[in-house]
Amino acid sequence: MTSSDLDRLWAVVPAGGAGTRLWPLSRARTPKFLLDLTGTGRTLIQGTIDRLAPLVGDRVVVVTGSAHEQAVRRQLPSVARVLAEPSPRDSMAAIGLAAAELEREDPDALIGSFAADHLITDEQAFAASVREAAGLAEAGWLVTIGIEPTAPATGFGYIRAGDAVPGFPTARAVTEFVEKPDVERARAYVASGEYRWNAGMFLCRATVLLDLLAEHHPDLAAGLRSIAADPSTLEARWPGLTRIAIDHAVAEPAAAAGRVAVVPGPFGWEDVGDFASLAALTSPDENGVRILGDESLVVSADASGLVVPAAGRTVAIVGLDDVVVVDTGDALLVTSYQRAQEVKAAVDELRRRGRTDLT
Amino acid sequence: MTSSDLDRLWAVVPAGGAGTRLWPLSRARTPKFLLDLTGTGRTLIQGTIDRLAPLVGDRVVVVTGSAHEQAVRRQLPSVARVLAEPSPRDSMAAIGLAAAELEREDPDALIGSFAADHLITDEQAFAASVREAAGLAEAGWLVTIGIEPTAPATGFGYIRAGDAVPGFPTARAVTEFVEKPDVERARAYVASGEYRWNAGMFLCRATVLLDLLAEHHPDLAAGLRSIAADPSTLEARWPGLTRIAIDHAVAEPAAAAGRVAVVPGPFGWEDVGDFASLAALTSPDENGVRILGDESLVVSADASGLVVPAAGRTVAIVGLDDVVVVDTGDALLVTSYQRAQEVKAAVDELRRRGRTDLT
Repeated sequence: MTSSDLDRLWAVVPAGGAGTRLWPLSRARTPKFLLDLTGTGRTLIQGTIDRLAPLVGDRVVVVTGSAHEQAVRRQLPSVARVLAEPSPRDSMAAIGLAAAELEREDPDALIGSFAADHLITDEQAFAASVREAAGLAEAGWLVTIGIEPTAPATGFGYIRAGDAVPGFPTARAVTEFVEKPDVERARAYVASGEYRWNAGMFLCRATVLLDLLAEHHPDLAAGLRSIAADPSTLEARWPGLTRIAIDHAVAEPAAAAGRVAVVPGPFGWEDVGDFASLAALTSPDENGVRILGDESLVVSADASGLVVPAAGRTVAIVGLDDVVVVDTGDALLVTSYQRAQEVKAAVDELRRRGRTDLT
Repeated sequence: MTSSDLDRLWAVVPAGGAGTRLWPLSRARTPKFLLDLTGTGRTLIQGTIDRLAPLVGDRVVVVTGSAHEQAVRRQLPSVARVLAEPSPRDSMAAIGLAAAELEREDPDALIGSFAADHLITDEQAFAASVREAAGLAEAGWLVTIGIEPTAPATGFGYIRAGDAVPGFPTARAVTEFVEKPDVERARAYVASGEYRWNAGMFLCRATVLLDLLAEHHPDLAAGLRSIAADPSTLEARWPGLTRIAIDHAVAEPAAAAGRVAVVPGPFGWEDVGDFASLAALTSPDENGVRILGDESLVVSADASGLVVPAAGRTVAIVGLDDVVVVDTGDALLVTSYQRAQEVKAAVDELRRRGRTDLT
């Protein structure tokens, strides 16, 4: 790795996803990445950009849905490049479009994709992982930063690490990417010590990424490069692009070809995927209740759980453990840590009833 | 019993109690009896007066705290006699004051006390019980209507029935009143078939009640009769009256002396003492959720319980059983059927914090 690796690195931040599992905090109009879920005063996407700034300066491209372009620009006044997708086309098109634009500007550009709605605890360790990954990317690898698993999670894909990569302190070749496992397999993965969580962080030369794509999905690679050559064709060409995740489109076949490296991510990572995950990020008060917001609004009696008093009203919880109460101005959710993933069912029911004003 | 027994019967309706176990629906300013808890369009005190009207016509005295006098008069425009207690002095003073006033107007007056905040299912059966009880009262008994227990409840006192009273179809002498039992004793009471729940329904000649009181609490009886003789002394004398429940003041000693009869109350009775009790009165929707209010405001996924969407907001419950969610404009309660009695702890905490605006 040389200092010039980072000088050529652009952060590409795909900002999509409805985040229905955090309803009613997250809505179609205000998805998770636009929310301050940690009470720090910064939204998740602002935190993402803050974390990347020491590494890439203003070399940032955010790719988001056209419905969220204005909100993203308001939250990120320092980010000049916001690409608006006319419609959702999954992560390969989003990241690939940024790669194609950057490739035209600098054939040696490196890109690193970082989700807009994750949290990272140790930013120094994160920076060290990115530096090592950028060096590998410079050398031609498709590099992923794989999170050290802390539990047999079934909500993430896993990355299997193989042999060490000579010349890099922690990198290993990736033997395969595996889909979200069941809990038995997840336990085995964690016990083996060979697996990392796939957090969607990929670093690569822009050209390498698009060339890999061209091997497996030539139409998609050509479409993205054509749009970059003539941005006025975006609206017309975009709907015809293949909907595919970057993992399936390039990472899995490239791993099979021995062209992917993984750098371990020992920095504390959280995808804030549901309210149980959000609860784990929120400290309990003296009664054992985790309050995200104004603590004076919450009273409890022999209860534990997460309370988000976002409507400014007083919330009392009595005699319930691991309860989740999310109080907003127009909608209230009551569930438990254990069932927090099923919030989507309530959102689906509201949509069936035509209550898109609430979802 | 003669028809003239009922002609001389006055209903005395003590309307007190904070009803903190139904917070945040009930508050100090809007206690339980002022609320429509059944979605019928009538509050509990209005339902009480409606139920009594066929029996007593306009011979009704409501006794309530001065803070609630105006609300009671607004809800009951047909009730001319509303006695306002300057401060809470428990049920003996409240009922005794009405008895003392009525005794002066008609030395043969009968009174029947009926709580303002209970529900009765079968009003015909209720009327039959009151008719029999009025006949017994005319004959000089202190009469209570005892509810047939449907479960080993620990939240009520019990009445033990002894020998039948000759000349009355269902009445039996009362051998004792017992305090709220533990669950073991409650089971034994119910299994024995000898016990009834004490619902605070007492019928008596006004003069007999006050004479019984004079035997055991002469100062209180004299104080009440003095106030009745000169109502201008109410404010001055009231604070000096003994605080005691009618059960302890007269019913228990009179039972020991063989002067109390019980008429069974087979009419379906509910004191709506907490949200579990309110849930039992509310029919479940097709998903098993009991909704008191606008059903279109509630969505559920694999959940059961009681939802009161009184703030007009959408309420979603996911993956919880027997949950209680009471949503009002300024306060929200989340608890369970099993722990609903403990809501008082949250109310106490709010009072400690000085939030009397909410309690």
